[in-house]
Amino acid sequence: MALTGASRNTVSARVDQLIAANLLEEGGRGWSTGGRPPTLLRFNSRAGCVLAVDLGVTSVDVAVTDLSAQILQTIGHPIDIADGPDLVLAEVDRLAQEALAAAGLTPADVCAVGVGVPGPVEFSTGRPFHPPIMPGWHDYPIPSAFARYECPVYADNDVNVMALGEMGIAGSDEDVLVVKVGTGIGCGIIVDGRVYRGAQGSAGDIGHISVTPPDGQTVICRCGNENCLEAIAGGGALLRDARAAGVPVSTTRELVELAARGDGSVLELVRNSGRTIGTVLASLVNFFNPHRIVMTGGVAQAGAPLLAGIREAVYGRSMPLAARALDITVSDAPDLSGRLGAALMAIEGFLDEDSVHQLSRADEQAAGVSPAGTRTGR
Amino acid sequence: MALTGASRNTVSARVDQLIAANLLEEGGRGWSTGGRPPTLLRFNSRAGCVLAVDLGVTSVDVAVTDLSAQILQTIGHPIDIADGPDLVLAEVDRLAQEALAAAGLTPADVCAVGVGVPGPVEFSTGRPFHPPIMPGWHDYPIPSAFARYECPVYADNDVNVMALGEMGIAGSDEDVLVVKVGTGIGCGIIVDGRVYRGAQGSAGDIGHISVTPPDGQTVICRCGNENCLEAIAGGGALLRDARAAGVPVSTTRELVELAARGDGSVLELVRNSGRTIGTVLASLVNFFNPHRIVMTGGVAQAGAPLLAGIREAVYGRSMPLAARALDITVSDAPDLSGRLGAALMAIEGFLDEDSVHQLSRADEQAAGVSPAGTRTGR
Repeated sequence: MALTGASRNTVSARVDQLIAANLLEEGGRGWSTGGRPPTLLRFNSRAGCVLAVDLGVTSVDVAVTDLSAQILQTIGHPIDIADGPDLVLAEVDRLAQEALAAAGLTPADVCAVGVGVPGPVEFSTGRPFHPPIMPGWHDYPIPSAFARYECPVYADNDVNVMALGEMGIAGSDEDVLVVKVGTGIGCGIIVDGRVYRGAQGSAGDIGHISVTPPDGQTVICRCGNENCLEAIAGGGALLRDARAAGVPVSTTRELVELAARGDGSVLELVRNSGRTIGTVLASLVNFFNPHRIVMTGGVAQAGAPLLAGIREAVYGRSMPLAARALDITVSDAPDLSGRLGAALMAIEGFLDEDSVHQLSRADEQAAGVSPAGTRTGR
Repeated sequence: MALTGASRNTVSARVDQLIAANLLEEGGRGWSTGGRPPTLLRFNSRAGCVLAVDLGVTSVDVAVTDLSAQILQTIGHPIDIADGPDLVLAEVDRLAQEALAAAGLTPADVCAVGVGVPGPVEFSTGRPFHPPIMPGWHDYPIPSAFARYECPVYADNDVNVMALGEMGIAGSDEDVLVVKVGTGIGCGIIVDGRVYRGAQGSAGDIGHISVTPPDGQTVICRCGNENCLEAIAGGGALLRDARAAGVPVSTTRELVELAARGDGSVLELVRNSGRTIGTVLASLVNFFNPHRIVMTGGVAQAGAPLLAGIREAVYGRSMPLAARALDITVSDAPDLSGRLGAALMAIEGFLDEDSVHQLSRADEQAAGVSPAGTRTGR
């Protein structure tokens, strides 16, 4: 066990670096408990901006935020994710330039880019990994589409990004599960305020956990396995079951609207879906003991009936100690969390040591540290 | 967002503190990439020792280690945990003094104490919380039994402690699940090399996750719920099922020995137990995407047949991406991991800033920091 290099002049040099990068500014004197009063350093959130991209299946939102994730400008536009990365990302690029110009900023002001996409992404490279609903996107280097900004680009799946956004909205750093119920079902895991990704970055993939079908009938999932959670309780499954019950709906959105209007048979389907999701969450509550579970995604907009089913199963099957202070809610700002999370992901990455080196290369020699590589598309 | 107090003189003062506490010593010159070569600081692992206590139901092991968790002395002794905390901890105290003396050390050398106990513990206070197999221990302040050492005392459940110990043995800081299959079933969760405890400290409580009984018959668990994992696949359940099948066994240990000798009916029971445990682990692999799963505890000593059942279920039901590089093994050192983990818990706690303040009170004024409370029994 050795703390090599933990020398005083390296620490001082790091502070110098941040000041040189204009990210820290001196902010007056602190309280002293005896010796010389320390100089306080303040974070300068207007030292640059980030681009936050929330890519959906049928639309994209692009926001420009400052370095404290305050939204300065935001533009939304319809897209079709199936048009493939070249076409879609060209459109994103156009929107980003429009948003920057509207905010009175230039590409040179962009410190980092964060992109949330509706499919699995290898976080270390920013490449989608066999995304089921994004044809043509497998292994595409998303960061390369933002080369003009000459800055780090971070891409992750939308659920992880939304989870970060929920933390930004709630402003705490607890252990939280953000469960998205849309066509499929996924989960973002927050440990101590940060996204937990696991060994291959696939953590939170709860849509394919095996469940017991309520009616005993085996359902084959699109993944090839039987009785996966999302094949029984996701939005696609709800739509299938509603149609089979003779309800005239063609989209999940229509189904959720019917539930909001109090349609009895749809309400029952949604509540049953909540019960099935709740049996999985009950296991995860025992295992993970979260402070909060936040439900989001299209089906979560059904609100009360889904939540009732989930709570029934969770409080019925979780250990009392883990469930006693557990908060299960529906997201207050499902439309905002994607953009906010993408901004926070970009800012968090940018503020990591490696990235800041980029801004202050001139100081590297004096600091005695070597430049580290950053993940950019250049 | 403000980085208050991140001033240079505070950082320097912190280094001074650690040097004053004799925990850091100057260790020669580092390599320079340009400027003045930095002074390297080396951790002094012989600056003190810790007591590591591994409390079991029928025995206790007490070890004295240095600050890098090297065992200097270790003593084991039979106990009965049901004798209650006063009697048992008096015995632990006697063993600790014996071990210290044998190592040529005194109580004044002890920097921290780590205690693993076979039941749930509120980590922030070191008090057991309704431990099912530790009558008389509920809410007992374990740290108070070590008041003579005038140092921080950390107590946690044995599975979290063993998980830390497994990390110490394997020497990595990955995301790991350490699953103990003894009479009951529990899980220690390691995130990035540290124990993850969750909101109430009950994370890893997988023994009461609901499973589908293989024969379709409902089993009532000692927790009052139906079909909990440990009621169907734990050591107690195995013993019950073996006896029902006419196998003449009275302890889990005998059962594991029969499995080791190749007894067909016992092997089948153990393998089925592995399959049931594997269905739960398959869900957790999708959710948590660990690098490794390490099996430990008495039943895990059955080895191959248990592992075969677990692997069959995990590889059959986990998502390919999460399972492709997953390593599932039986602990190499199940007897050592409890002591080593207790030592690492004590050292980790001790090296946290708050504790080190204790050793260098004289420096507090100069450092401009105020003394923080430490969790001790005094």
